[in-house]
Amino acid sequence: METIDELVANNRAFAEPLADRHLDVEPSRRLAIVTCMDSRLDVFAALGLGDGEAHVLRNAGGIVTDDTIRSLAISQRRLGTREVMLIHHTDCGMEKLTDDGFRAELEEAAGTAPDFAIESFDDVEEAVRRSILRVRNSPFVPHREAVRGFVYDVDTHRLREITA
Amino acid sequence: METIDELVANNRAFAEPLADRHLDVEPSRRLAIVTCMDSRLDVFAALGLGDGEAHVLRNAGGIVTDDTIRSLAISQRRLGTREVMLIHHTDCGMEKLTDDGFRAELEEAAGTAPDFAIESFDDVEEAVRRSILRVRNSPFVPHREAVRGFVYDVDTHRLREITA
Repeated sequence: METIDELVANNRAFAEPLADRHLDVEPSRRLAIVTCMDSRLDVFAALGLGDGEAHVLRNAGGIVTDDTIRSLAISQRRLGTREVMLIHHTDCGMEKLTDDGFRAELEEAAGTAPDFAIESFDDVEEAVRRSILRVRNSPFVPHREAVRGFVYDVDTHRLREITA
Repeated sequence: METIDELVANNRAFAEPLADRHLDVEPSRRLAIVTCMDSRLDVFAALGLGDGEAHVLRNAGGIVTDDTIRSLAISQRRLGTREVMLIHHTDCGMEKLTDDGFRAELEEAAGTAPDFAIESFDDVEEAVRRSILRVRNSPFVPHREAVRGFVYDVDTHRLREITA
């Protein structure tokens, strides 16, 4: 069976015993979490998060990009969140590339360079601090005081806080 | 206890009984999932996904944006994924706003309009189809054949496939 078909079958088995229920679209913990797309980070399990509690934003690196600012602006202005938790992690794929090298690779493949920044990094703590600052400096995000940053260790499963 | 402190304590309890283990940075199912930040969508549980199996990308709406293309390019070119599963959902917060209205609100608050598109929608099936096309049309994403789109019903917990 193809992978996606298998996940759809898993979903059917997951939904079958559950009763219908409606949770509100506004996250009950009024929190947005920004983290990496990494496959080893099951955010709900690793943070003991329940359904309906927090927004979860994920991209390559867990970097705060324009798309993250767009999402946080909507999260805070329309859906009531007030705090932001940023989580980068050890052994990140973003340490496997450089901005210039990857941009050149994309330009060679596509015949045109991308408009977006690649956002590679080699110092994860520095990357967390930069992401914290990007939230703090964005005029589009109204609640910027409660922003905290962490590194998740994919081997020990533990969070460590990064202080500015 | 503050919400974030509570989640950090949850993480300590989660990690405590687990043995250290190392999983590879490349997702074993060679799949990237793109979905919404919505708090009611526990992707790992709802798809029966295991640690280390798939990249998970999330933003407001589960829309394919430049940041999604950046992440998919890295996912496929550096980390071996080959398939893309797009999941939008019912009762989405993106249906609570309009592009023009939200842009004007941001401009009024910040004194400057954002560079990014807001990406609101009111027809979720149409939004899924548009996101499928954005992946299919991106020259930066090398593997564009195996892209499928779904709507997750947040009340019944079930996926429904959207065909082009």
